[in-house]
Amino acid sequence: MKNLVGTCIFGQSGGPTSVINASAAGVFIEALSQKNITKVYGAANGIKGVLDENLYEIDREDMDELLLLKNTPSSALGSVRYKLKALEDDDTDYKRILEVFKKYNVRYFFYNGGNDSMDTCNKVSKYLLKEGYECNIIGVPKTIDNDLYGTDHCPGYGSAAKYVATTLMELYLDATVYNKGQITIVEIMGRNAGWLTAASALASYKGYGPDLIYLPEKPFDVDKFIESVREVADKNNGKCIVALSEGIKTADGRYVVEAIASSSAAKDSFGHTQLGGVAATLANLVSSRIGGKVRAVEFSLMQRCGAHLASATDIEEAYNAGKYAVKYACEGETDKMVVFERKPGKEYAIDYKLMDIAMAANTEKKVPLEWIKDDDTGLTEEFIEYALPLIQGESKSPLEDGLPRFARLKKVRA
Amino acid sequence: MKNLVGTCIFGQSGGPTSVINASAAGVFIEALSQKNITKVYGAANGIKGVLDENLYEIDREDMDELLLLKNTPSSALGSVRYKLKALEDDDTDYKRILEVFKKYNVRYFFYNGGNDSMDTCNKVSKYLLKEGYECNIIGVPKTIDNDLYGTDHCPGYGSAAKYVATTLMELYLDATVYNKGQITIVEIMGRNAGWLTAASALASYKGYGPDLIYLPEKPFDVDKFIESVREVADKNNGKCIVALSEGIKTADGRYVVEAIASSSAAKDSFGHTQLGGVAATLANLVSSRIGGKVRAVEFSLMQRCGAHLASATDIEEAYNAGKYAVKYACEGETDKMVVFERKPGKEYAIDYKLMDIAMAANTEKKVPLEWIKDDDTGLTEEFIEYALPLIQGESKSPLEDGLPRFARLKKVRA
Repeated sequence: MKNLVGTCIFGQSGGPTSVINASAAGVFIEALSQKNITKVYGAANGIKGVLDENLYEIDREDMDELLLLKNTPSSALGSVRYKLKALEDDDTDYKRILEVFKKYNVRYFFYNGGNDSMDTCNKVSKYLLKEGYECNIIGVPKTIDNDLYGTDHCPGYGSAAKYVATTLMELYLDATVYNKGQITIVEIMGRNAGWLTAASALASYKGYGPDLIYLPEKPFDVDKFIESVREVADKNNGKCIVALSEGIKTADGRYVVEAIASSSAAKDSFGHTQLGGVAATLANLVSSRIGGKVRAVEFSLMQRCGAHLASATDIEEAYNAGKYAVKYACEGETDKMVVFERKPGKEYAIDYKLMDIAMAANTEKKVPLEWIKDDDTGLTEEFIEYALPLIQGESKSPLEDGLPRFARLKKVRA
Repeated sequence: MKNLVGTCIFGQSGGPTSVINASAAGVFIEALSQKNITKVYGAANGIKGVLDENLYEIDREDMDELLLLKNTPSSALGSVRYKLKALEDDDTDYKRILEVFKKYNVRYFFYNGGNDSMDTCNKVSKYLLKEGYECNIIGVPKTIDNDLYGTDHCPGYGSAAKYVATTLMELYLDATVYNKGQITIVEIMGRNAGWLTAASALASYKGYGPDLIYLPEKPFDVDKFIESVREVADKNNGKCIVALSEGIKTADGRYVVEAIASSSAAKDSFGHTQLGGVAATLANLVSSRIGGKVRAVEFSLMQRCGAHLASATDIEEAYNAGKYAVKYACEGETDKMVVFERKPGKEYAIDYKLMDIAMAANTEKKVPLEWIKDDDTGLTEEFIEYALPLIQGESKSPLEDGLPRFARLKKVRA
């Protein structure tokens, strides 16, 4: 445990969320107040900005704009999807990072992202330890997928879940408005974990939710799906709403789009397998097997950048995740990721703790199978109790001309 | 001009909007206060509810729930797409309507919808006049398409426009976040009028908008489109955001999806022309002609039912459109539709006036060509001045468990 004195770099990585900039605000504002941190840099496009020496001087920014980051979606510094090669295969990037860290006397490094980003963070941390370069490194979790290991939940999830639940409630009213039936199939993000799709059960909890919910945690049976949709529609004047995860797979481990494409040999005019999401693919199938009006809806990028619907709880926790990363690093901690631990008791509250970063890298946390109802109609009460506190409260950017006023950073190059 | 005494029926028709229920609230609350209106009915699923004698007793509802209608999207009474046949071809429905009106002593009829709904309203009105049955009939406009003739704008448009502009601003931050390029093609509703797609220019006005905007008012040239996208992407590190209307057509009058499908003979495995929207179709084309990462995004149903982003101005005007329909009818007016007239002067304000309903039926109002920039980069200052006042203010439902609390009507059958 060393109280190092030097500069810090913060980088953002992976897919955007509504609150990744709230963590940036937490890191920046806390770092600016720490006497051992002599200068605060933001890396443009994550680790790429370190490699390219593309750094912004955060102490040149106005505090008001840094605070507006709390309500500005996506990654204000730019993001990146860049996987460091294994050190034994190629040490070029590692040497370059060390060179840049030495040049700027970087003694604190904070990296904000999901599984892949924690892998980067872990690799950099292990390399610097090996080289004996003292630098406290703390990962800041972030992902709408909520699939990081070792934390009760991830910053970004609560806001995306609130988007999914609210929007599904509105969609429910829209999709059931006519006297004639309509089958509506909604595709939700989350990669191989069903957490975000499960949030659609919060809409059901309020009485305006999907009839059927499919998560990647359970194998998807196309024929059984068709029969379930038919049953609901038959009972319900032709109406059925389905929420399903982009990551659902058939029992043989193939994504549903691939499985259907190969079975029906659906190719486009160039001979490629048809593009399009799983909702569109299944909507086509339902249309040909059941008939009637079928509509595929994708929440697409909106579910991860819909900051106007962000959860105040999520924003606060994301901010604190950044703040605690800095606090812990300044107390001498390194090679760790900030995690949330839910306190016992009826009242929702969390503690901000640390976990070895190696544990977070590349491990996926799934929805417990016992929380998923066997008849595919949704999630159990345990999930509702888990998720409901995460979507509470409202916090959005101030309006200007009736539209959001996002943070405007000067981005002065170092 | 007769001051009739009797009951009233209100019906909702056509596609949902965020504020069609605000007009319902306006009609109901005003009608309940009028002494000449002896009872207030709501028709289930518009004119279908009249034909089927499926009517709800609105005086049995709680006032608090009627007020919550102002923030409840879609059509609380249920909607319908039902076109009355021409009277000379088949008078069955007309006779049935007259029968029901006589049975319930209906002397006031209010119908809320877009072009097709105003056609229904007009036909009923003309038939009853012909039959000498005294009934004051006033249409209440509604459409996110904003394409009704004779009114400055339509209730529902402001909220959908606010959704489009806000969401595009957020999408802009998401779609430009990586160091690598991405071409993003966003499809927006509006049928054959470009008003809603034009609202994406409000995002550009704030500095976070699409690079290219395509409305159905101008013929769409596929090759020119590809070249424009290429030019923007070349200048902009591979990034380009396009907003386009679902209704864009090529110079020969075909929808773009049809035009492309027939030229490339893209069929699915059943021999049908591929389903899918124009954004997905053009994304495929851009991907094969330009390459790189291309993403199609559809605002889908969310843009018309996103009540959590409704414009307070729109809600108030929608409410007043319903209120004034009742007021005017009670003053003896009939065979009219409520229209908005923008008052001259710098400060935005409107008058609620009346127009012959026949004028509103089946006439489409388009975006003036001179408001559309020749280089497809957006709309002129005239459009911004026109649209900006319509998206002002916020008004959303109260929250319960962090999610919207929509109106719960008892729907007591008459």
